Amino acid sequence: MIPNTSGSIPADLDRWLHANDQRGMDDLFAFLRIPSVSAKSDHNADTARAAEWLNASLTRFGFASEILPTPGHPIVLAEWRKAPAGAPTVLIYGHYDVQPSEPNELWTSPAFEPTVRDGKLFARGAVDDKGQLWVHAMALAAHLGARGTLPVNVMVLAEGEEEVGSVNLAHFIERNRARLACDYVVISDSAMFAPGIPSILSSLRGLAYFQIEVQGPSGDLHSGMYGGAVVNPAMALARLLATMHDARGRVAIKGFYDRVRAFPAAVLMGMKKLPHSDARFRKDVGVKALGGEAGKTTLEKLWTRPTCEVNGMLSGYTGEGAKTVLPAKAMAKVSFRLVPDQDPDLVEKLLRAHIKRVAPPGVTVTITAMHGGRPWRADLDGPLFDAARVALAAAFGRDPVIVGEGGSIPVVGDFERILGAPVLLVGFGLPGENAHAPDEWISVDNLRRGMRAMAVLYDALG
Amino acid sequence: MIPNTSGSIPADLDRWLHANDQRGMDDLFAFLRIPSVSAKSDHNADTARAAEWLNASLTRFGFASEILPTPGHPIVLAEWRKAPAGAPTVLIYGHYDVQPSEPNELWTSPAFEPTVRDGKLFARGAVDDKGQLWVHAMALAAHLGARGTLPVNVMVLAEGEEEVGSVNLAHFIERNRARLACDYVVISDSAMFAPGIPSILSSLRGLAYFQIEVQGPSGDLHSGMYGGAVVNPAMALARLLATMHDARGRVAIKGFYDRVRAFPAAVLMGMKKLPHSDARFRKDVGVKALGGEAGKTTLEKLWTRPTCEVNGMLSGYTGEGAKTVLPAKAMAKVSFRLVPDQDPDLVEKLLRAHIKRVAPPGVTVTITAMHGGRPWRADLDGPLFDAARVALAAAFGRDPVIVGEGGSIPVVGDFERILGAPVLLVGFGLPGENAHAPDEWISVDNLRRGMRAMAVLYDALG
Repeated sequence: MIPNTSGSIPADLDRWLHANDQRGMDDLFAFLRIPSVSAKSDHNADTARAAEWLNASLTRFGFASEILPTPGHPIVLAEWRKAPAGAPTVLIYGHYDVQPSEPNELWTSPAFEPTVRDGKLFARGAVDDKGQLWVHAMALAAHLGARGTLPVNVMVLAEGEEEVGSVNLAHFIERNRARLACDYVVISDSAMFAPGIPSILSSLRGLAYFQIEVQGPSGDLHSGMYGGAVVNPAMALARLLATMHDARGRVAIKGFYDRVRAFPAAVLMGMKKLPHSDARFRKDVGVKALGGEAGKTTLEKLWTRPTCEVNGMLSGYTGEGAKTVLPAKAMAKVSFRLVPDQDPDLVEKLLRAHIKRVAPPGVTVTITAMHGGRPWRADLDGPLFDAARVALAAAFGRDPVIVGEGGSIPVVGDFERILGAPVLLVGFGLPGENAHAPDEWISVDNLRRGMRAMAVLYDALG
Repeated sequence: MIPNTSGSIPADLDRWLHANDQRGMDDLFAFLRIPSVSAKSDHNADTARAAEWLNASLTRFGFASEILPTPGHPIVLAEWRKAPAGAPTVLIYGHYDVQPSEPNELWTSPAFEPTVRDGKLFARGAVDDKGQLWVHAMALAAHLGARGTLPVNVMVLAEGEEEVGSVNLAHFIERNRARLACDYVVISDSAMFAPGIPSILSSLRGLAYFQIEVQGPSGDLHSGMYGGAVVNPAMALARLLATMHDARGRVAIKGFYDRVRAFPAAVLMGMKKLPHSDARFRKDVGVKALGGEAGKTTLEKLWTRPTCEVNGMLSGYTGEGAKTVLPAKAMAKVSFRLVPDQDPDLVEKLLRAHIKRVAPPGVTVTITAMHGGRPWRADLDGPLFDAARVALAAAFGRDPVIVGEGGSIPVVGDFERILGAPVLLVGFGLPGENAHAPDEWISVDNLRRGMRAMAVLYDALG
């Protein structure tokens, strides 16, 4: 069923999208059949093929598109710059690479054979991110197909390394800063809050990830012969980790919250109105009670508050049975999610000072910074977000909600910082979409409404 | 070099031990090559092979030896009962199983390829306990080889489950109480205080070993998408472990010290006179500062005070690099060393009550009791200890000292309780022997002096 958007989509664009619906779907299927797994070098030819496929498609739609090399997988950059004088320039970012499909045996239909069941299109990359990139391609094609023109200048930048950390993207943007100059950046690589509720993602948490190693005796000791006189590094590590939070679930590192800037009251209020259920969340996660900072709602905790988590922990004997060893060392991977205006480098300094203060004598504690990313928050005023509200309301029949995201998308900050343009994060996935898991899917209805919403967005920005 | 014990060893026994030195060493090497790791079921065939090897060796020396089944690894029981009427019966206990050898990469020479370097015999089981069991076997063989007889009736009882808590031994002793009736029990599974200082071990700590598992969400979660609202099981475990001690290093479990009985003043005084150096101890262990209970000397802490140690800890991602996972579960192996009159079952009850009190909502904590053993303290008067003093002085050229031991040999209490016979603990290991760690070793000189000392002991008891 092609959605009835009740005349709120310009008739010519809606008609074109109707007429080209099957062909657009066939094209997306072809895109999804290419196993462009960027993490696996034995898929390098497939990844290159996906870039070529996308480049050819955008060229066919009327873009000047080319494949630009990087030290890793290439970047597809397609441009259309014939908008009326004074029209703004929009840069659309997406990625054509996908996560590995393993474990393949858990897929209902094969990962690289797109299949529609119950209104869901299943395939690796369906939602992350080929399907969402295709939403934009079709919206642009509708303008060029129906009208022969676009109301804005457009660049589509699609990278092939998002799933391996976008290792070459920031450098590429820096190097092509003049060419990539734009007024707005639009990214669709996220999900809506719930079915039928169009969503604008207005914040991302940052990350500061560390490995903490506690070295005690020079070798493992017998816990009977030495226990009681030698500081146990595993116990010392446990005691260090226990100092990370206070009794109310706040991070107890001095200065940690100094740079935390409160979220706007309107955003917090909006979150409280979202149809979230703690009971449902607990059931999904499989726990009887939730944790975290006292006095905050779950969505506040996930989207607006920084955290300290243990991601891994290893010491001594962990095999079957009992071994009476006093371990020589203990290790934990500890990461912090950050919110504006926390800074990963500053958090590292604070952590080092904290550990120095609480580490007991008798052990040596080493901290290694693994990687970090800055948190991000959109300024929700201005023409980009106004246009997005109009576009989403037209296609989905209701106003969008403002949501946050607990994870990190480091490139968002890169675009904003290097190009000086505001970034709109508008996603068409849904909860349970299995983005990095077997049976990844996107709603076919969301694909169609997304194309219409983005077609309206370009009109609204023009 | 075969030690010169200056004529204080009966010439016939000394001559026999000289003549059979190389063969005895070859035999011990063969014994040590068998990886009889009782904790690992994939080594069951090896553990069985070690029992057969020992049974065959003791039979060859002139014992009536047999392999007696238990629900776990079997017991080797060798008997020689032809001593003159009225001669006492001595039961020698040891074990043929060994600790796991991991981490194998930290061994200088492979764990199960016995190698002599600088007068030290390196192998898993060299000192714990195959080497020390072999000291007795050779001392007995010397009597039977040189004289065709022994001055005492002898049983050698070797089990294959010492390293997994001697789970079937107490029941075996109970069931064979009549057959195992004896006047003295002799065990060599410990160390001398220092090179050249023969030692009688007069106290052992007990053990209560647990696996603590903390289950959080039903599966691993993304630490960005869920972190801050879901209780992190690794962090929860760290916080639980941190409640185990107070700020002065005492175990902070309610009631834990209630049954601790003070050591005799004479024994404490003797400890203070032993040539112990904290600086040396720190250097041996490889730490800059010691830990444990405030206000106690190191030897007091190790021998007379109970402890709580983490023996192993595992959660989440522990490989290379960073993975932003909020782990579904976390595990720690935690053990307590106990002193008279603490009781492992009571400690289990206290621990369960403590964990119940401190465990946070949002996770489920499971405690599994792995194994335990009662602490023990010898009565140092009587013929057994007099004979031991004579035997050790003869072989080592100086009077033995009275020492304690931080480790546990749970069966000591069982023997004393069930058979009603006093137990002599006389060990030939040395500090730094790495009993449960890579590069385990025993001094070759101690092996030879030990054989001579034990040969004299049987004479002195006869």
